[in-house]
Amino acid sequence: MRKVAIVMGSKSDAATVKSAYDVLTKFGVPTDVRVLSAHRTPKEACEFAQNARNADYGVIICAAGKAAHLAGVMAAHTTLPVIGIPIKSSLMDGLDSLLSTVMMPGGVPVATVGVNAADNAGLLAVQILSIENPVLAKKLEGFKDEMAQKILNDDKSILDEFNKI
Amino acid sequence: MRKVAIVMGSKSDAATVKSAYDVLTKFGVPTDVRVLSAHRTPKEACEFAQNARNADYGVIICAAGKAAHLAGVMAAHTTLPVIGIPIKSSLMDGLDSLLSTVMMPGGVPVATVGVNAADNAGLLAVQILSIENPVLAKKLEGFKDEMAQKILNDDKSILDEFNKI
Amino acid sequence: MRKVAIVMGSKSDAATVKSAYDVLTKFGVPTDVRVLSAHRTPKEACEFAQNARNADYGVIICAAGKAAHLAGVMAAHTTLPVIGIPIKSSLMDGLDSLLSTVMMPGGVPVATVGVNAADNAGLLAVQILSIENPVLAKKLEGFKDEMAQKILNDDKSILDEFNKI
Amino acid sequence: MRKVAIVMGSKSDAATVKSAYDVLTKFGVPTDVRVLSAHRTPKEACEFAQNARNADYGVIICAAGKAAHLAGVMAAHTTLPVIGIPIKSSLMDGLDSLLSTVMMPGGVPVATVGVNAADNAGLLAVQILSIENPVLAKKLEGFKDEMAQKILNDDKSILDEFNKI
Amino acid sequence: MRKVAIVMGSKSDAATVKSAYDVLTKFGVPTDVRVLSAHRTPKEACEFAQNARNADYGVIICAAGKAAHLAGVMAAHTTLPVIGIPIKSSLMDGLDSLLSTVMMPGGVPVATVGVNAADNAGLLAVQILSIENPVLAKKLEGFKDEMAQKILNDDKSILDEFNKI
Amino acid sequence: MRKVAIVMGSKSDAATVKSAYDVLTKFGVPTDVRVLSAHRTPKEACEFAQNARNADYGVIICAAGKAAHLAGVMAAHTTLPVIGIPIKSSLMDGLDSLLSTVMMPGGVPVATVGVNAADNAGLLAVQILSIENPVLAKKLEGFKDEMAQKILNDDKSILDEFNKI
Amino acid sequence: MRKVAIVMGSKSDAATVKSAYDVLTKFGVPTDVRVLSAHRTPKEACEFAQNARNADYGVIICAAGKAAHLAGVMAAHTTLPVIGIPIKSSLMDGLDSLLSTVMMPGGVPVATVGVNAADNAGLLAVQILSIENPVLAKKLEGFKDEMAQKILNDDKSILDEFNKI
Amino acid sequence: MRKVAIVMGSKSDAATVKSAYDVLTKFGVPTDVRVLSAHRTPKEACEFAQNARNADYGVIICAAGKAAHLAGVMAAHTTLPVIGIPIKSSLMDGLDSLLSTVMMPGGVPVATVGVNAADNAGLLAVQILSIENPVLAKKLEGFKDEMAQKILNDDKSILDEFNKI
Repeated sequence: MRKVAIVMGSKSDAATVKSAYDVLTKFGVPTDVRVLSAHRTPKEACEFAQNARNADYGVIICAAGKAAHLAGVMAAHTTLPVIGIPIKSSLMDGLDSLLSTVMMPGGVPVATVGVNAADNAGLLAVQILSIENPVLAKKLEGFKDEMAQKILNDDKSILDEFNKI
Repeated sequence: MRKVAIVMGSKSDAATVKSAYDVLTKFGVPTDVRVLSAHRTPKEACEFAQNARNADYGVIICAAGKAAHLAGVMAAHTTLPVIGIPIKSSLMDGLDSLLSTVMMPGGVPVATVGVNAADNAGLLAVQILSIENPVLAKKLEGFKDEMAQKILNDDKSILDEFNKI
Repeated sequence: MRKVAIVMGSKSDAATVKSAYDVLTKFGVPTDVRVLSAHRTPKEACEFAQNARNADYGVIICAAGKAAHLAGVMAAHTTLPVIGIPIKSSLMDGLDSLLSTVMMPGGVPVATVGVNAADNAGLLAVQILSIENPVLAKKLEGFKDEMAQKILNDDKSILDEFNKI
Repeated sequence: MRKVAIVMGSKSDAATVKSAYDVLTKFGVPTDVRVLSAHRTPKEACEFAQNARNADYGVIICAAGKAAHLAGVMAAHTTLPVIGIPIKSSLMDGLDSLLSTVMMPGGVPVATVGVNAADNAGLLAVQILSIENPVLAKKLEGFKDEMAQKILNDDKSILDEFNKI
Repeated sequence: MRKVAIVMGSKSDAATVKSAYDVLTKFGVPTDVRVLSAHRTPKEACEFAQNARNADYGVIICAAGKAAHLAGVMAAHTTLPVIGIPIKSSLMDGLDSLLSTVMMPGGVPVATVGVNAADNAGLLAVQILSIENPVLAKKLEGFKDEMAQKILNDDKSILDEFNKI
Repeated sequence: MRKVAIVMGSKSDAATVKSAYDVLTKFGVPTDVRVLSAHRTPKEACEFAQNARNADYGVIICAAGKAAHLAGVMAAHTTLPVIGIPIKSSLMDGLDSLLSTVMMPGGVPVATVGVNAADNAGLLAVQILSIENPVLAKKLEGFKDEMAQKILNDDKSILDEFNKI
Repeated sequence: MRKVAIVMGSKSDAATVKSAYDVLTKFGVPTDVRVLSAHRTPKEACEFAQNARNADYGVIICAAGKAAHLAGVMAAHTTLPVIGIPIKSSLMDGLDSLLSTVMMPGGVPVATVGVNAADNAGLLAVQILSIENPVLAKKLEGFKDEMAQKILNDDKSILDEFNKI
Repeated sequence: MRKVAIVMGSKSDAATVKSAYDVLTKFGVPTDVRVLSAHRTPKEACEFAQNARNADYGVIICAAGKAAHLAGVMAAHTTLPVIGIPIKSSLMDGLDSLLSTVMMPGGVPVATVGVNAADNAGLLAVQILSIENPVLAKKLEGFKDEMAQKILNDDKSILDEFNKI
């Protein structure tokens, strides 16, 4: 199975990004974590993206905030799918990060998930790798069932909860 | 090669969505186009998503506007990656469509591209399918080279352009 | 009297939604509370909506946040009025939830109240049920009088308050 | 059957509001149309709301733009459900109208539909009146079927459409 | 000298509104404080506005949040100038209050100050009353001089401050 | 009666500002119109404001767009009330102009009306001057009556209108 | 005198960017115009920025829209000041371009001007070059005087204009 | 070397602005810090700007919040480059400050950095002064290298970090 790279623009995003790593690890997807900055180590960032396919990566997840250029810069240097996580910043709760990540010009898409939605970024990478991988596909079905079961359990108990609130 | 489905919530989005179809066709990816509405034909929409993997689809592209639920509803019923195209609506140029598409709850990601960015949705689908497909990967390299060449040509002629404006 | 259903997409919204339940209970309207997710238990959510009229419900109140699809999905499967409560999320204080709930396509309305305004959702359900129910109508008049009386009392005391601040 | 009142703050909104009237007429709901302004004829507006229940109205639909106070003012004077249509204004495509309509204080709800969504306002009124009216309920089922059939027809023809675009 | 009325829609706004009262008191302007709600005590609110000129008021200051209709409703019932203070609410830091207060229809202006800017509302009332009142005008000059002096003092000490931070 | 000054930052705003002039002229208020720029003729702008009270002005109306500093700069140099008209610009329909005008720091209020609402700016100036002027007060009552009569006439004819649309 | 480079991400921005070129040419500043894309020709863009100081440039002006990364990418590769022009895009009139350009991370500033404000970008470059260049400084004074004179002329004629409108 | 002036509109912004001072001091740029208010000490603010070039300043950095006019007012009175720092205010996290600073009219640019980005304002001033100053240019290269080295170090340690979180 191809690997997934999780790249963050600053180590300060590590705590947020962690849940993407946890999802990928839980699904048994080999995952590397990197700190590469579009603005501070642009050379290393570009080289990583250029070599990613040959280095056996299948998906690159990028997390960045404010004028979030990391995902776009990576996408400029690879033909692999790039997933962007807009990190919540101080301006309008991450609207700047979201727009900077998702509004890419024609020819260079970034698969954007919600603000700070690192878990969904990890899950999306698993879904992408699952297309040709029946084992992952089956695990994803199991994951969906677990989610549903949790809601069904909550549904059973909610009226009691209300009387207790 | 697995197929791509392009699903729109209303036939009125056809002209916008067309460029996704054109990109996929250009790359030789077999593509089906459907009109399925999360709100008007919810049963058909759900069934399509549930059967998509077995029907040999690899990626589902969904286009919808305003309170754009289509991509999310499809993602709820499949473990395949779902790409969302927020269609430009009348409220704040599609901010409603964008937020309704991208801000998905944990466990059900939608790979969102820019507002009306159907070409990028098509290209993202090609990138996803290219992970295990060297022929597509090579075509994507060629596409990137063509884009670059166009810019390089523009760069050569721009100073003349300025003197003519 | 027909019942009201309060449906939340996640048990984490219970504390917010509680005030809808309290209003309905205070007015003596029989109320069921459910956890049903448009994305995690879509089958159960759809079935609930499809059967709601026959199950003697008159109004369905839905609470959901971020890309809030719950109210819209329920409205797709019933001809009963659906009231949507946009839950305050982390992006722009719930603007995503509000737009995802209110900007529904033609043919599938959601009666949207303010962000987190669960009390008003409950009250709106009572108003709807009061149309053909003189007892509820009279209770609503009493409720309006109580609200007014509270303001009138505050008005009497405010100047003293100011001198004390 | 109780009547529905469609109230607009200015005759300039008549063309937008017309589709609410058309929906109600199509469903056979007796409908009155009024021009009453929260700011220019406040006395008449308040009196209308106060007498609405006795005048055999079941639902009041209000359409107003910009600092859209009409629905809120009407809701202050009646215990009937009030539906608000935020009219698209010149500021951010009606965000001002939407927020002025939907963000009501506790105790005075307005059932808000999307910006300019007069058709949905009419339909919501029909849904509300249908709770105790099996004939309307059946007509609503028929309406839903027609909507679905239109989408199903579009779905059948869409691939041909694409080849023709 | 004519009086100023400070009207708030809810006693919960008292702490914010207090600074308007303090400014007016400091300038010796007779000031009444009221709690009157556009939605909960509409009759009292309208009557207050209708009688305000005869009751020797010169300016009415209104403070309200969210779908802030109070200033508009008061302005509908008086020909006196009405100053609106948009109270900071939970949605986008008071953008809803601001737009609901300032975007009034033609013919019914509200003199809007910044979100929560009660001090400026008080000061604006003083400026309005000062037009024909040389004593107030002179006090305002003194106030401006004090403000300037404070800044000049800060300017003198700032470099020291920086070395200490 | 004191005069009103209408000051615009650029002659390109003349057509929008014209309705303020028309309102003031209609009410018989002596009005001067000036082009003074906070950024291009700051000296003249400041001097005008400083001398305005002595030059027998009672109110200064300022119209400016984008980073609209004109009203604030004028307010910094006078103790007269300053009314700000945010001119609709190209960014979010004038949100930049509105925020630049209304969000003034403590001590320097600007009485802001809606985006492009020059008519309301003129009317607000008349209301301010009417406080001590019974003739203007009476004219304002007449104006309110005319507005109401127009709505009442529209109300009478609207149902016929609907059948004709 | 050092040269200025005007770099645009796409030739489609040429018409907007032209006024920067016109300002620079008018002030006699040697100016090169380039088309270089952060996403389509990233290598050329980076190399240009890396060599800019040695190639005798003093300022780099970058124009880009939507997820506007060009200015940031250039700034990552040079220690020269980089001016960013956010190009008006289809989403909220360029708010995406503005936020993507201005909200740069610590250590990599972009001197951002208003949306589409190419003239101001050119002028800012002239101001920067004028710091050590008395001839440019003098020309800038002349430019300011001309601007003022135009406003003064408009001021003289405006009252006549009003009577003619 | 020419000096840099850091001007803040209120001493309450000192803590935020401090990092601009620290950057400039670190690079050995002589820096003065002032408190000057566009609205409270407009005369002093204007005079400072008018004399800045003769007083041997090269760049003026202005920090202000809400309706942030300071940078614009300074820019109106000087031909030196003016850098604006929008201070984070209470409305939408500083969107008001950002728009009031960046959306300047033609002819009067303000070089705007991100909300609260005082460090970048300082750095931008250094970059501007470095154009004709090889020593500063070399220091900036060193600064860029340090930033890169920090990211490279973080990159080396991040995988360990993840296993520890």
